[in-house]
Amino acid sequence: MVAPSGIVTLLTDFGTEDAYVGILKGVILQINPVLTIVDLTHQIPPQNVALGAFQLHQTYRHFPPGTVHLAVVDPGVGGTRSAIAIMTPTGCFVGPNNGILGQILTDAQHEGSFADCHALILDNPRYWYTSAPSRTFHGRDVFAAAAAHLASGLPFQELGTPMVLEQLALLDLLQFQSAESGLRGFVQAVDRFGNVISNIPNDAVQDRTWLAKAAEQNFPSHSTYSEVSVGSPLSLVGSHGWVELSVSGGNAQQQYGLGIGDPIELTWS
Amino acid sequence: MVAPSGIVTLLTDFGTEDAYVGILKGVILQINPVLTIVDLTHQIPPQNVALGAFQLHQTYRHFPPGTVHLAVVDPGVGGTRSAIAIMTPTGCFVGPNNGILGQILTDAQHEGSFADCHALILDNPRYWYTSAPSRTFHGRDVFAAAAAHLASGLPFQELGTPMVLEQLALLDLLQFQSAESGLRGFVQAVDRFGNVISNIPNDAVQDRTWLAKAAEQNFPSHSTYSEVSVGSPLSLVGSHGWVELSVSGGNAQQQYGLGIGDPIELTWS
Amino acid sequence: MVAPSGIVTLLTDFGTEDAYVGILKGVILQINPVLTIVDLTHQIPPQNVALGAFQLHQTYRHFPPGTVHLAVVDPGVGGTRSAIAIMTPTGCFVGPNNGILGQILTDAQHEGSFADCHALILDNPRYWYTSAPSRTFHGRDVFAAAAAHLASGLPFQELGTPMVLEQLALLDLLQFQSAESGLRGFVQAVDRFGNVISNIPNDAVQDRTWLAKAAEQNFPSHSTYSEVSVGSPLSLVGSHGWVELSVSGGNAQQQYGLGIGDPIELTWS
Repeated sequence: MVAPSGIVTLLTDFGTEDAYVGILKGVILQINPVLTIVDLTHQIPPQNVALGAFQLHQTYRHFPPGTVHLAVVDPGVGGTRSAIAIMTPTGCFVGPNNGILGQILTDAQHEGSFADCHALILDNPRYWYTSAPSRTFHGRDVFAAAAAHLASGLPFQELGTPMVLEQLALLDLLQFQSAESGLRGFVQAVDRFGNVISNIPNDAVQDRTWLAKAAEQNFPSHSTYSEVSVGSPLSLVGSHGWVELSVSGGNAQQQYGLGIGDPIELTWS
Repeated sequence: MVAPSGIVTLLTDFGTEDAYVGILKGVILQINPVLTIVDLTHQIPPQNVALGAFQLHQTYRHFPPGTVHLAVVDPGVGGTRSAIAIMTPTGCFVGPNNGILGQILTDAQHEGSFADCHALILDNPRYWYTSAPSRTFHGRDVFAAAAAHLASGLPFQELGTPMVLEQLALLDLLQFQSAESGLRGFVQAVDRFGNVISNIPNDAVQDRTWLAKAAEQNFPSHSTYSEVSVGSPLSLVGSHGWVELSVSGGNAQQQYGLGIGDPIELTWS
Repeated sequence: MVAPSGIVTLLTDFGTEDAYVGILKGVILQINPVLTIVDLTHQIPPQNVALGAFQLHQTYRHFPPGTVHLAVVDPGVGGTRSAIAIMTPTGCFVGPNNGILGQILTDAQHEGSFADCHALILDNPRYWYTSAPSRTFHGRDVFAAAAAHLASGLPFQELGTPMVLEQLALLDLLQFQSAESGLRGFVQAVDRFGNVISNIPNDAVQDRTWLAKAAEQNFPSHSTYSEVSVGSPLSLVGSHGWVELSVSGGNAQQQYGLGIGDPIELTWS
């Protein structure tokens, strides 16, 4: 078990207009005023669990081991989904058991650390913010409190009842496929710059060149934006681990009308 | 007088596109680099004092006692409204005397701590950021500096001239009313999820069931979103202390066109 | 050389929807978990170097000496522009050499501290986040790591190869001009409130009164918003050092259709 880093990250779909994020921080600092709180993002589209899982997945491994990551996109709050925590060699994670944390375990499997992962249900009322949690705001009443206690060094198992890792909800993510002369994938996210992020991992194209095609448009592979003229489409090994489609100095999403779920075909060249 | 927690919260209508919030933080950290600064929100609609007061009211009690809350929505900056600070058993508050802090004292009255509250005008130039404050940015020149000094342990009375609490500006808020067979209230806020927050406190409906009606639509009372099917309207005891109108897995504001000030009728069932 | 304040500020065009900003913070805290990170803004319009330079320029002098400012608006990432750091008596600055840091040296010239400024190219791989930086995300792989090391007390010259200050890229900013009976300037920015910020410095109008004209509309000079009735246009000495055009209780940009680059004429009255 890694010593806590004293850092708590927050990822939610709460937005920044309302008081919700401030309340999470208040609860955390009430429990331990010297914790460091870092916002990952609060702009996940409301109730979009898949995009929440994607952003968390891009980010968590860049934090010190022992960091606690709170991830709350929670359309089923107050219903039957359980509130959980996971501990891995990389850090601790708290959130609803609706798939938002599923990718963490998939990563652990790939990295061979699955046996060092543990999960539990946050059912020990001693570590809730209130003895009678709201039916609509577990972010405040269950998750923030759990995150603060974990980041302060509370032994993991104190937080609740152990669960087997196989009970963790996983998202049914679209997978990329090998085709005869290349790969077939899908758009899994689009960033602020209009870069279109596929679900084809960089590993799958390493040391090769290719032509990507999406929305009837060709995106030839290059190493960096400046290899093509401003306004030209290209495809490259992205900084987060996925093949991306871009427009140099422009916005590929807007220019070609691409969106999440659209197919992408890669042909080796 | 509670010892300072070392935490300063910020609530403004400055937005996050401009340099204003960064400047507030620079001023605070110049005065004391070890303070913890927490953003409540900077997305209050420009010059909307009532929504600023609402969001502050939802949030402050979740922070440790001795926290300093800066609240600046200040359409009258440079005019005759005074710059003030308030100390209560819960924390300290700095901002313009335009109603944004009024609810704090109303709360203290309800909680029986009015006699332990103090207020003053921030007219001691020794604790301004500059001896000649700008006429347009008291957030930087007066309020941020006062908040930093208070959070660092400066005795409250050093900041300026005492004022009687009765001089505090209060907002003329719409009140809910008891009707023959229920309650009549108004929409006081809408959150990012489209939840419509009434001004009817949860206390007024405790342990009862009801049918809410707004914009010609019925919202039957339930305990949680998942008790109704996705897309269905409902009304519930909200997490912030007010009766709310929602759509399960949807957006009540958009679906029914509700806005701030719209009437809501509750009929006991 | 000023001792580090332990504070790192971040200014980018990354937005807050994606994981990019969270990743920067993770990298910084991996290198030193006790640093204080402050967001200036991440809402610079994508790839708008000039507005990034403007917002940095408004903000940096309000932070404690020895603060490290990371400024990444970087359309040429992966191309020939170099990654640099600058040290001045006010603080340290890291970013691409594309003009975003140019104003810092112009300020140093005005303040007579040019001889105390130093610059270098961030080409020492020992202080990168990874030995093989991504071609598209130097914010993570080069700039965040450099900022964290500087803020932790690493001697400046360790980060790379010295460069002469004359090699620093400067933006070709529009200048204001003296006219027969006043001044001619341009709109350089517009804030959230619709205040229109000219490139005419307050120094150029000190102790005078004037009539400003832009978009065929007159904006007479006043000391503060409340000197005119709500809805009326006015011009005033702005809090950031520039003459501004505003509408009392309103939005000058929207009301008069003003935008960046529009001319403004001042006539002394």
